[in-house]
Amino acid sequence: MTQNIYDDPDFFAGYSQLPRSLSGLDGAPEWPDLVAMLPDLRGLRVLDLGCGFGWFCRHAAGEGAALVTGIDISENMLARAHSAGADPRITYRRSDLENLELEPDSFDVAYSSLALHYIERLDELLAEVAKALRQGSRFVFSVEHPIFTAPLEAGWMIGPNGERTWPVDHYLVEGRRDRKWFVDRVVKQHRTITSYIDLLTASGFTLSRLIEWGPNDAQIASHPEWAEERQRPMFMLVSAIRE
Amino acid sequence: MTQNIYDDPDFFAGYSQLPRSLSGLDGAPEWPDLVAMLPDLRGLRVLDLGCGFGWFCRHAAGEGAALVTGIDISENMLARAHSAGADPRITYRRSDLENLELEPDSFDVAYSSLALHYIERLDELLAEVAKALRQGSRFVFSVEHPIFTAPLEAGWMIGPNGERTWPVDHYLVEGRRDRKWFVDRVVKQHRTITSYIDLLTASGFTLSRLIEWGPNDAQIASHPEWAEERQRPMFMLVSAIRE
Repeated sequence: MTQNIYDDPDFFAGYSQLPRSLSGLDGAPEWPDLVAMLPDLRGLRVLDLGCGFGWFCRHAAGEGAALVTGIDISENMLARAHSAGADPRITYRRSDLENLELEPDSFDVAYSSLALHYIERLDELLAEVAKALRQGSRFVFSVEHPIFTAPLEAGWMIGPNGERTWPVDHYLVEGRRDRKWFVDRVVKQHRTITSYIDLLTASGFTLSRLIEWGPNDAQIASHPEWAEERQRPMFMLVSAIRE
Repeated sequence: MTQNIYDDPDFFAGYSQLPRSLSGLDGAPEWPDLVAMLPDLRGLRVLDLGCGFGWFCRHAAGEGAALVTGIDISENMLARAHSAGADPRITYRRSDLENLELEPDSFDVAYSSLALHYIERLDELLAEVAKALRQGSRFVFSVEHPIFTAPLEAGWMIGPNGERTWPVDHYLVEGRRDRKWFVDRVVKQHRTITSYIDLLTASGFTLSRLIEWGPNDAQIASHPEWAEERQRPMFMLVSAIRE
């Protein structure tokens, strides 16, 4: 079972203050590149894995999706999603993504933002998503980049002139990583890019695009503090087709 | 034009003493995984980009390839390849891969070992290789992994208990990297995994497999000094199909 850290009060209090929690999709600098990987959502049945506050579900409904199903393990997150107001096209469902069961051929597009790096049995989840997607449909997701998740103890190293480097270790040793993030122990799963691609392929997906995300010049101009993200990618964005 | 470092006497003297120079393919720990990506070479017209001493060309001929063309910029390397003895199926050709010209539809498989990270205009080389490969054929290559090529100044950081970490910086800033390797200045080109995949796609290839290479348990048992390669991958192996 996945650690349900979002229902930890201290974690939730901290997480709720992030720009992406306060401002939604526009508070997430990788959003423009992620949304560009998605098809036109009009009339589609949309699945959102780890929907959190429901920002993407509401975006999909606003874009004309026929049905949107948001799934999350956290009661806190789903309560916040519900508090944004009911929409007859959106259904929120509480479930651990590790034990998710979906109807065959019930979705036309799947989406997941920064959730899959919490999943230990990603092979089982991908098989379930593949089963639920009609042939030819797209799965677009973001995860923490393996360079970011690899180290046993992660953090910037600051040089004498303030220059930042990101020490990598255990990159090829996959598995659990405990991180201090608002609370002492947030459990993540490190896997390599090779494994992400191989797991997708083994589940019946074909890789369509893989972006090691970093801010563009305009973003750095408006947010100079993001420049450090060019030193090592924090996010990886993936688009795959269900064959 | 690519730097022809292999014709620098000091570099060549050092390089010639590497296990992979002395023992050939069996001296390269990634070789078993690379050869497993290749098709049966019997009857095929084989292209080797950056053939060096010709180890792979002789392997391909030994496997029954119909014709093998090995290309390298280095006179030293090609002289050593020739000194291994003539084979009517093998042709060595001296050329800078940056300015390579190949006949359309003239090869059934392309191979390159640790050469493409020297190439500045990889888009042009890939277009040339795509043109020369018949539809449905395979391009298998290895490069230095982007984690390895990213830092402006690369090297292990050794902790107080001997633990090794690999400081990464400038990962998303592609371009030239000067390295000290036998001589003071070996010029390499850093690009991201995203760029390798996008460049392949833009040239008419579909990614088939991408391996961030590390030694397996048996290899570490026989070569304990290779264990550090699990801290960060040094090589990336790629298999792509010409569509």
